[in-house]
Amino acid sequence: MADNTNIAVLDSSIVDRLPVSSKTLFDAKATKALTFESIASHLGRSEVAVAALFYGQAQASPADIEKLSTLLDIPKQKLTEQLGGFPDRGRAGPMPPVEPLIYRLYEIVQNYGYAYKAVLNEKFGDGIMSAISFSTTVHKETDEKGDWAVITLRGKWLPFSRF
Amino acid sequence: MADNTNIAVLDSSIVDRLPVSSKTLFDAKATKALTFESIASHLGRSEVAVAALFYGQAQASPADIEKLSTLLDIPKQKLTEQLGGFPDRGRAGPMPPVEPLIYRLYEIVQNYGYAYKAVLNEKFGDGIMSAISFSTTVHKETDEKGDWAVITLRGKWLPFSRF
Amino acid sequence: MADNTNIAVLDSSIVDRLPVSSKTLFDAKATKALTFESIASHLGRSEVAVAALFYGQAQASPADIEKLSTLLDIPKQKLTEQLGGFPDRGRAGPMPPVEPLIYRLYEIVQNYGYAYKAVLNEKFGDGIMSAISFSTTVHKETDEKGDWAVITLRGKWLPFSRF
Amino acid sequence: MADNTNIAVLDSSIVDRLPVSSKTLFDAKATKALTFESIASHLGRSEVAVAALFYGQAQASPADIEKLSTLLDIPKQKLTEQLGGFPDRGRAGPMPPVEPLIYRLYEIVQNYGYAYKAVLNEKFGDGIMSAISFSTTVHKETDEKGDWAVITLRGKWLPFSRF
Amino acid sequence: MADNTNIAVLDSSIVDRLPVSSKTLFDAKATKALTFESIASHLGRSEVAVAALFYGQAQASPADIEKLSTLLDIPKQKLTEQLGGFPDRGRAGPMPPVEPLIYRLYEIVQNYGYAYKAVLNEKFGDGIMSAISFSTTVHKETDEKGDWAVITLRGKWLPFSRF
Amino acid sequence: MADNTNIAVLDSSIVDRLPVSSKTLFDAKATKALTFESIASHLGRSEVAVAALFYGQAQASPADIEKLSTLLDIPKQKLTEQLGGFPDRGRAGPMPPVEPLIYRLYEIVQNYGYAYKAVLNEKFGDGIMSAISFSTTVHKETDEKGDWAVITLRGKWLPFSRF
Amino acid sequence: MADNTNIAVLDSSIVDRLPVSSKTLFDAKATKALTFESIASHLGRSEVAVAALFYGQAQASPADIEKLSTLLDIPKQKLTEQLGGFPDRGRAGPMPPVEPLIYRLYEIVQNYGYAYKAVLNEKFGDGIMSAISFSTTVHKETDEKGDWAVITLRGKWLPFSRF
Amino acid sequence: MADNTNIAVLDSSIVDRLPVSSKTLFDAKATKALTFESIASHLGRSEVAVAALFYGQAQASPADIEKLSTLLDIPKQKLTEQLGGFPDRGRAGPMPPVEPLIYRLYEIVQNYGYAYKAVLNEKFGDGIMSAISFSTTVHKETDEKGDWAVITLRGKWLPFSRF
Amino acid sequence: MADNTNIAVLDSSIVDRLPVSSKTLFDAKATKALTFESIASHLGRSEVAVAALFYGQAQASPADIEKLSTLLDIPKQKLTEQLGGFPDRGRAGPMPPVEPLIYRLYEIVQNYGYAYKAVLNEKFGDGIMSAISFSTTVHKETDEKGDWAVITLRGKWLPFSRF
Amino acid sequence: MADNTNIAVLDSSIVDRLPVSSKTLFDAKATKALTFESIASHLGRSEVAVAALFYGQAQASPADIEKLSTLLDIPKQKLTEQLGGFPDRGRAGPMPPVEPLIYRLYEIVQNYGYAYKAVLNEKFGDGIMSAISFSTTVHKETDEKGDWAVITLRGKWLPFSRF
Repeated sequence: MADNTNIAVLDSSIVDRLPVSSKTLFDAKATKALTFESIASHLGRSEVAVAALFYGQAQASPADIEKLSTLLDIPKQKLTEQLGGFPDRGRAGPMPPVEPLIYRLYEIVQNYGYAYKAVLNEKFGDGIMSAISFSTTVHKETDEKGDWAVITLRGKWLPFSRF
Repeated sequence: MADNTNIAVLDSSIVDRLPVSSKTLFDAKATKALTFESIASHLGRSEVAVAALFYGQAQASPADIEKLSTLLDIPKQKLTEQLGGFPDRGRAGPMPPVEPLIYRLYEIVQNYGYAYKAVLNEKFGDGIMSAISFSTTVHKETDEKGDWAVITLRGKWLPFSRF
Repeated sequence: MADNTNIAVLDSSIVDRLPVSSKTLFDAKATKALTFESIASHLGRSEVAVAALFYGQAQASPADIEKLSTLLDIPKQKLTEQLGGFPDRGRAGPMPPVEPLIYRLYEIVQNYGYAYKAVLNEKFGDGIMSAISFSTTVHKETDEKGDWAVITLRGKWLPFSRF
Repeated sequence: MADNTNIAVLDSSIVDRLPVSSKTLFDAKATKALTFESIASHLGRSEVAVAALFYGQAQASPADIEKLSTLLDIPKQKLTEQLGGFPDRGRAGPMPPVEPLIYRLYEIVQNYGYAYKAVLNEKFGDGIMSAISFSTTVHKETDEKGDWAVITLRGKWLPFSRF
Repeated sequence: MADNTNIAVLDSSIVDRLPVSSKTLFDAKATKALTFESIASHLGRSEVAVAALFYGQAQASPADIEKLSTLLDIPKQKLTEQLGGFPDRGRAGPMPPVEPLIYRLYEIVQNYGYAYKAVLNEKFGDGIMSAISFSTTVHKETDEKGDWAVITLRGKWLPFSRF
Repeated sequence: MADNTNIAVLDSSIVDRLPVSSKTLFDAKATKALTFESIASHLGRSEVAVAALFYGQAQASPADIEKLSTLLDIPKQKLTEQLGGFPDRGRAGPMPPVEPLIYRLYEIVQNYGYAYKAVLNEKFGDGIMSAISFSTTVHKETDEKGDWAVITLRGKWLPFSRF
Repeated sequence: MADNTNIAVLDSSIVDRLPVSSKTLFDAKATKALTFESIASHLGRSEVAVAALFYGQAQASPADIEKLSTLLDIPKQKLTEQLGGFPDRGRAGPMPPVEPLIYRLYEIVQNYGYAYKAVLNEKFGDGIMSAISFSTTVHKETDEKGDWAVITLRGKWLPFSRF
Repeated sequence: MADNTNIAVLDSSIVDRLPVSSKTLFDAKATKALTFESIASHLGRSEVAVAALFYGQAQASPADIEKLSTLLDIPKQKLTEQLGGFPDRGRAGPMPPVEPLIYRLYEIVQNYGYAYKAVLNEKFGDGIMSAISFSTTVHKETDEKGDWAVITLRGKWLPFSRF
Repeated sequence: MADNTNIAVLDSSIVDRLPVSSKTLFDAKATKALTFESIASHLGRSEVAVAALFYGQAQASPADIEKLSTLLDIPKQKLTEQLGGFPDRGRAGPMPPVEPLIYRLYEIVQNYGYAYKAVLNEKFGDGIMSAISFSTTVHKETDEKGDWAVITLRGKWLPFSRF
Repeated sequence: MADNTNIAVLDSSIVDRLPVSSKTLFDAKATKALTFESIASHLGRSEVAVAALFYGQAQASPADIEKLSTLLDIPKQKLTEQLGGFPDRGRAGPMPPVEPLIYRLYEIVQNYGYAYKAVLNEKFGDGIMSAISFSTTVHKETDEKGDWAVITLRGKWLPFSRF
């Protein structure tokens, strides 16, 4: 087995909350000692999308399944069966989050939610930023103060219909 | 009074949840018909930070108070008293959010929280993205499919101490 | 005062939960003894949209304000101030709803939510029916068994972005 | 196995929340690669009703069981035993819903609940729209803006008894 | 003022949760020292219905308003305005109830809910007992063991529609 | 196996919430295709009491166990062991109830709780209707409007002690 | 004003949760600097009962009102009006309690609840200890280890009815 | 097996919430048909303490384990392993309790909590009655009105430290 | 007024949750521009204790009142009345905390709670660290990495009584 | 097996909530009868950190795994697999805590949260004490009054960024 010091694996105590595909995929990822960066690069998708797919929060296309099967040595038939449905999203963890990393993201919404709304409304009018017609990326910056995580959220603006 | 079609104002039913400075500032903003963009430009801060300050979620420096007093025609003494303390954050709205725009941000955390954690852990190790050593911006992009809101979150990476 | 037996008015105990415009509008509606049907017809909007506007859950256009001012004898300046902002939606009542009529709608979501999801996914793929690019109507049907309420929900289908 | 790209299947992590009939039915549906549309057509029922039946939220008649047994190649005895009781409704998913598609329906109730009540009261008097003497359909519309999902809710109007 | 030892009055701390009509009616009832039994007899309605009306949980007919105005010496115009709308039910007290008397009723539902369901399903099929097409009475029985309260609930049986 | 179209059985997804006796009893009841009416008649108890016993919400006497053993063909030793303890009540289902039939009973408490309290207090003084020194029955009435379910609750009146 | 170092008074922030009588009584008690011990002795009731009466959790008899009026110099008419109804119990504080002293009592129920149940069932059979036909006292013991608070709960045993 | 009509046993549906020792102990107790009274007498501890120990809410001393092993015919090694740790208290049942007997105790705290606090503060000053330096007993009294359960709570008074 | 840039003041939106003494004390503190450090030094108590006293979470001795009256120019009679009772603790803010600073403390309990328990149990046996016989201090350390906050919690160890 | 009277072990009923490594580590610790003090000394880490590691709330370094493998006789390969990921923190126990020892820590945050915030803000300005750049220790003090537990929390001060 490769050195997997920096490989995210599936916590055994949340397995029951996720679809069976999550265990299949994470087990193979651990065995292969692959990062999401390398898998994402192989699939031509973003890292966050691939991690979401592993957690059952995003859909796999037939091409994704094909590539995952090859890369992770999982029989294609098995992956097709486990990933064939429509994701049942939103149940990966409790809300409010108890995991410190995820809580910080939640806290940003809690503290800045109304500020975002006011600024977005002034820029776009009455509506929302879609979380569906949506993409997101994560990258790392380093300066003299240390490392910085930068998360970008990009969503289609949807104005409320007038009816 | 200027045309304030696109001016975010304070919903009268949440006034009691916020510090008195919120009403003072929003009333003056409405009277002057100023956007957060113009106020932020005047203060040399980001729009979201200024909106957060209006909602009692960020601290005003003495220079901010000085400039807000001039720009909004609020007696400096009054602003100093109302903004003089340390913000008591987190109570602007309920969680889970019921406002559709804010809910979409919450939903992003709900759906992608574990994906962000996995990707960030692989990139940075065991730790969190700070929501305190943190900044955020909002901007608007337009392409042939319509308008897109882009929110950037940038936080210092804090590794868990080993002790 | 006209006979207002069938005029919906604002329950005095929820006034504090709503923006001040709600009281202004409902008081005038009660005085004029107007139904939402007649107001909606005057504004050229649907009844539900107008009722939502009265409850602070939908935005009024300048033209709406103009017409409401005339129809309800409310000074336009006052309406403009009270309706000028962006609605802060979702706080009209508690969830789960305790009002029996509203609970029945909630129960439909509770009982048929997964059925709707399965059917919509099969018809449209992986995505959601928008509640923003959305309209809704209510009408009454009568047959030999009695009266039937028919509510139609029509929302843009938004596929999840692939990223 | 047929191509089941567009076949809704049962998420493995919610199996325990549902009656055993759900697994039996969904497994057979996946094997046969049948849509709810085709099953509904076979049973002479609406798609939503059939999906609800699969999720344990609606009762199967003896004729339904007969037809499901034939169509899905499930022994009739087994289906009769598993579907023979009275549905124990309401436990398919959490409320508030965390699944984005189902949340949008919930949000409609949250935002428009009082508006529906006001409009229905004015049209029908004091009462409720039944969720029991009730039917619902889903269909798809397409125009130049894209696809639209249309959900129709039709319930008997029940006036509050005077006693 | 009459002896009102046995007159139910409105607890001052729940006034804000109820419509203004509740205070108007209960104040007059206290002044007149009338029981619900006597008011119900005057209105030709059941005691529980009248008490529900006082708590804002049932609708008053024009004839009810007429009679209440006379019996309680409240100007008819005032009553009409306060009772003119459609009741916004369900907010009289918290659930689970904290009041011991009301908790006992809740506990009956908690302990016997599934038993009622099983027995009702066997007697009537798949459906519900309506709480809308519904009436209820309270009476007192006395035997050698003491006093007994007897509450009768009578609701229309509504079978689930087949669709 | 007899025709059990109208036999209430145990939903497989709530088995874990109930004592093992529930599964034993319901399985035998399904096999014998017996209604609660016939079992109750055999035991000389009310239908609701027997259903409550099946759901682990009421205690079985030695005579009950004897008769159930005979009627349902369950070894007496097994029944004695499984039913020998004191019921651990209140966990058959969630509160607020999500099952529509049980919710209607809950809603009656929610809407009429304070009305019952006021009427009972006026009739009996300060106290409660016991849910322990308590019995309840269900019966069916039919008139030209359809079927009606009638539930009677009869509880000992307990005055608050003066101390 | 007398030295009231050891006089329990009403926390100003919970006044709104209690009936108006609470403020009347506590204000007079503070002015007179009376302990509950002395008031209880004057009324011939237990201290806890009197404190409960002050918090709106117990009913005052006409004799209680008479004596309280004299002892506390409150006009009898005012006390009669404020104490005339039936207590609306259970809303004095939040549950779970946040007050440390009250939390300890709650914790005893949390930790020993099932132990009490098992022991009581073995001693009395299937039933409950009434909290209505109930009295309670508090006294102080001192030994070499310090002071001890002793709370005694005495409730009528109510066996579950067999029906 | 002895007649165990009055032997408290472990409800099979709460086994998972308790440590494995609970099942071991209760099974042996049922087989031996021993009451807590007899076990407590054998151990020289109070009945409630012993029942708490069985529910995993109190610690067993080596001497307790020795005696339990002998009395209940459980291998000492097994008991030592299962009872060797420090109790993880507070998870025996849900709070608020749904079991009627336990709810009555909770209701006493809910109704009389502030009364106890006021009386205790006046008797002892600012502090709490400890639930740790604490003991409790249950006994039975009988008079002409019936049986009475008497629960005594005795806790060390802990004054708040001044710092 | 002195420069109060670093003076903690009372957020206007939480005033209603606190006793009236909080507003009295914080207003005077703001006017005098005093830090808790200087007030604590004047009273001979710790800073945290004094801040807790200001938030209504700790009791003031007669000497504290005397000194606060002098230092803050508040009439002693007024302070005596407002601070004369026993604190009603625990309601200063919501739990889980939404304020980021307070949340971090809560998170420490959430993450390390069981670790503290295990370590304390091994060091002291079965018991708790008292939060009543308790003191706490805060101090500041600075090293080359920046500033560090150090909070010390010191509580009496209370072993569970054996009974 | 050694005498393990004072060895903290894993409660069998919380095993499912924790990662598999917890069971592996605690089982070996129980077999070896090692305290956290001795393990911590072996690893050169603090006791709390090691206990947190055992509960899945802290990360093990490769050196930690090496030493744990040797000390506890667990195959290194097994430990590496089970401890190789990034901890998924925060799910060891419920919040609010029900365990009395952990509740006391929670209560300290509940009672003194705002006091800590005020004091920290005055000492450091607007920011938080990090729970990530953080360490904590526990030690025991004994004086004439008994034993005292002393918990020290030391966190980096993070000022809110100005943006």
